[in-house]
Amino acid sequence: MDSIIRVTLWSEDRHDAAVMKLYPKGLHGTIAEGIESLGGFQTRIATLDEPHQGLTDEILDATDVLVWWGHQAHDEVSDALVNNIQQRVLSGMGLIALHSSHFSKIFRRLMGTNCSLRWREIGERERIWNVAPDHEITQGIGEYIEIPHSEMYGERFDIPEPDRLIFISWYQGGDVFRSGCTWQRGNGRVFYFSPGHETFPIYQNKQIIRVIANAVRWAKPRIRVGTEDCPNVTSSLEKVT
Amino acid sequence: MDSIIRVTLWSEDRHDAAVMKLYPKGLHGTIAEGIESLGGFQTRIATLDEPHQGLTDEILDATDVLVWWGHQAHDEVSDALVNNIQQRVLSGMGLIALHSSHFSKIFRRLMGTNCSLRWREIGERERIWNVAPDHEITQGIGEYIEIPHSEMYGERFDIPEPDRLIFISWYQGGDVFRSGCTWQRGNGRVFYFSPGHETFPIYQNKQIIRVIANAVRWAKPRIRVGTEDCPNVTSSLEKVT
Amino acid sequence: MDSIIRVTLWSEDRHDAAVMKLYPKGLHGTIAEGIESLGGFQTRIATLDEPHQGLTDEILDATDVLVWWGHQAHDEVSDALVNNIQQRVLSGMGLIALHSSHFSKIFRRLMGTNCSLRWREIGERERIWNVAPDHEITQGIGEYIEIPHSEMYGERFDIPEPDRLIFISWYQGGDVFRSGCTWQRGNGRVFYFSPGHETFPIYQNKQIIRVIANAVRWAKPRIRVGTEDCPNVTSSLEKVT
Amino acid sequence: MDSIIRVTLWSEDRHDAAVMKLYPKGLHGTIAEGIESLGGFQTRIATLDEPHQGLTDEILDATDVLVWWGHQAHDEVSDALVNNIQQRVLSGMGLIALHSSHFSKIFRRLMGTNCSLRWREIGERERIWNVAPDHEITQGIGEYIEIPHSEMYGERFDIPEPDRLIFISWYQGGDVFRSGCTWQRGNGRVFYFSPGHETFPIYQNKQIIRVIANAVRWAKPRIRVGTEDCPNVTSSLEKVT
Repeated sequence: MDSIIRVTLWSEDRHDAAVMKLYPKGLHGTIAEGIESLGGFQTRIATLDEPHQGLTDEILDATDVLVWWGHQAHDEVSDALVNNIQQRVLSGMGLIALHSSHFSKIFRRLMGTNCSLRWREIGERERIWNVAPDHEITQGIGEYIEIPHSEMYGERFDIPEPDRLIFISWYQGGDVFRSGCTWQRGNGRVFYFSPGHETFPIYQNKQIIRVIANAVRWAKPRIRVGTEDCPNVTSSLEKVT
Repeated sequence: MDSIIRVTLWSEDRHDAAVMKLYPKGLHGTIAEGIESLGGFQTRIATLDEPHQGLTDEILDATDVLVWWGHQAHDEVSDALVNNIQQRVLSGMGLIALHSSHFSKIFRRLMGTNCSLRWREIGERERIWNVAPDHEITQGIGEYIEIPHSEMYGERFDIPEPDRLIFISWYQGGDVFRSGCTWQRGNGRVFYFSPGHETFPIYQNKQIIRVIANAVRWAKPRIRVGTEDCPNVTSSLEKVT
Repeated sequence: MDSIIRVTLWSEDRHDAAVMKLYPKGLHGTIAEGIESLGGFQTRIATLDEPHQGLTDEILDATDVLVWWGHQAHDEVSDALVNNIQQRVLSGMGLIALHSSHFSKIFRRLMGTNCSLRWREIGERERIWNVAPDHEITQGIGEYIEIPHSEMYGERFDIPEPDRLIFISWYQGGDVFRSGCTWQRGNGRVFYFSPGHETFPIYQNKQIIRVIANAVRWAKPRIRVGTEDCPNVTSSLEKVT
Repeated sequence: MDSIIRVTLWSEDRHDAAVMKLYPKGLHGTIAEGIESLGGFQTRIATLDEPHQGLTDEILDATDVLVWWGHQAHDEVSDALVNNIQQRVLSGMGLIALHSSHFSKIFRRLMGTNCSLRWREIGERERIWNVAPDHEITQGIGEYIEIPHSEMYGERFDIPEPDRLIFISWYQGGDVFRSGCTWQRGNGRVFYFSPGHETFPIYQNKQIIRVIANAVRWAKPRIRVGTEDCPNVTSSLEKVT
């Protein structure tokens, strides 16, 4: 229960100068530092332009929870890698999809829907309401998190009804969004969390980092099993006459 | 509300002699006749070996609910067709997946999981318990349906938690199965129903046909919309300062 | 399917002069007229100060869907009546709880939770976002409903996770709310809808009336059954050795 | 996270001679010993015929998870105590309802339904299938638990759709049952587990005890909060013009 959780942070890492000024270590570097500072995590960075798009079988074998940040290059992620990650999640690995990763291949694959939403980028205020104060993911967060300048992600968000709705966001411009949602898929847990943006310093917000750390703890595997492929059980447990 | 529902029954239609003896019109033909006899449906047959694997855009445009029966040839269904059907479901078309279609590409795509199960084929008795007597799908069915000889499909069934669990099956050999389940995906409704087999006369059972007919009525579209692709809404509804 | 739906609108009917000026026929009278104008409904009014608090067995027997509006006098409703209504819902009768009825005895009884929320009454703007465009309840509504002056009902709303979340409200003052939610209880359907207030003309809004009418159609019984009391089934379906 | 969990086992403790022969320490004593042997729990026994029906405020204040076993005397539990326990659960305390406690006042209160089921007592075989192998409650359990002689509890079970369905039971006599189910209520977690009977030695089965111990760990509070009573928040977070 209390062993170190092995977290792999995957990122496109195609940041331009504006992003690098705000996040000199990249978004993934900032998140990694943030959650490590809370204790109990061992982080690793993986990026799109590395060999095997950053995720070999060895790395995935050593990953308890995968945190995903994709934005412009969703289509470049290979279908073979998406298949591999999907199978890992179904086998028990946790997945945290951040912000624009709602439109990543792996998140859409696990949801079965398009995961479309409406968006607007005018730097408006966002208030992330905690609607599940009992949940592991919201511990230490309080009633809401306020983000002074945010990208708006608005309903209707095309997702299956979440198992638990954790956060609902209010936007100054008049929109709302289911900004934190959980789902079970196979033996794995999935959390989507919309706050986070490449040119607003949202991942430097300590409450945002706490949510991600909490979510990683919540999503760590309880079991890891192999893929089942419709086994034929020839003999019955009870006598059939 | 009361207009005729346009149902397309898709089948592999690779039946061997044993199947054809039992179902001279094919499984799909038997189901089509069965539900038409209950009134309110206009059915059409589509099969794998037809041009476009049976499902052109014109046919899909004219389909309210698609009933799917695949078995041995899941892999032969083209990914392009699977993508097309998925988008239709998300847009509002209903989908009923029967029996071995739990392992079809389209059902697995919509679920996001492997949909593996355990199975055994010794002709044992199955009793399908109705656990949702209020639901549209169980109207006229009573407490249970008994199938004298059935293929066993057993837990654990690798599916996302259903929105509603409709039927649980008991098997003589000692197993249980979530044999009727509903899910929402996008604007479309999905129902999986496990009873049905190519060499037991299960689709000649009037209660089984009634369940399928009820499910088609339940799954018919309330709306049909186009695919959304993350629209950018540039102006806000409220003034942002 | 197409028979007239018998709707009973229950109200405290303890309106003061300000309310009566806005709603000369009472809130319930306005709602009754509104939904009747859409066709397919036969309405009846029942109020707290009538004999039997407005709801005899005869009236409940002749009610397909009960619409509830309580506010200041929740505690005056007798426990015997609450028990009776609960059993009717479990037997198949629909229940629509409006606005301040979140704190009614019957709604709390069916939820099992306190149904507390935060509130504020400064006449701010509310925008009710439709997050379930496929659902029967949102047909004809569009993306959102705007209410110029509303009472704020805000999270956290202490309810069990809804079966479907239908509406999320945005408030000018910075809050959000799960303003439309469905639950199944026994054989009956329950819908909570928060918009509606005694001194803002919200029930004169045609979209609000359409939501209530849609919800009544959705909540009408598919079956009406007696109360089950743990029947002992002495003989088994299968031989036990 | 790793502190000792304080468990109160409440029981009617109206066992007759047959029960006392099988369970010399009472059902509750056997369960208490069983889970204590697994480590991490501090147990306390409370019974109906003690002052305050066994549960004073002091005891409830010192209870993380309450395990409930009632059978013949459900009606004797005072409504005041039921109200008190309900508020504790909504505030964060866990509740495990065992076997015939499906018909206890507190379980029915939290569900909002009648919780009726069908039953038969002929000592038939029960096989409890694990349909949620990833869940905390099923760790160490394997595919199923077999009970040689059991009381049959059968569908339809009148409960709200569980948040997670954990176990489905198969019975030799031909029935099935949702025998392990979880629900969230307020800030508290609820688990119902049907196996267990006063004259079959089911609570001496190590797997059954493991399930109960796992469930207690799962249900321990993450937060404990006071009861909210619809607070009026007079000032808004955003300026309302």
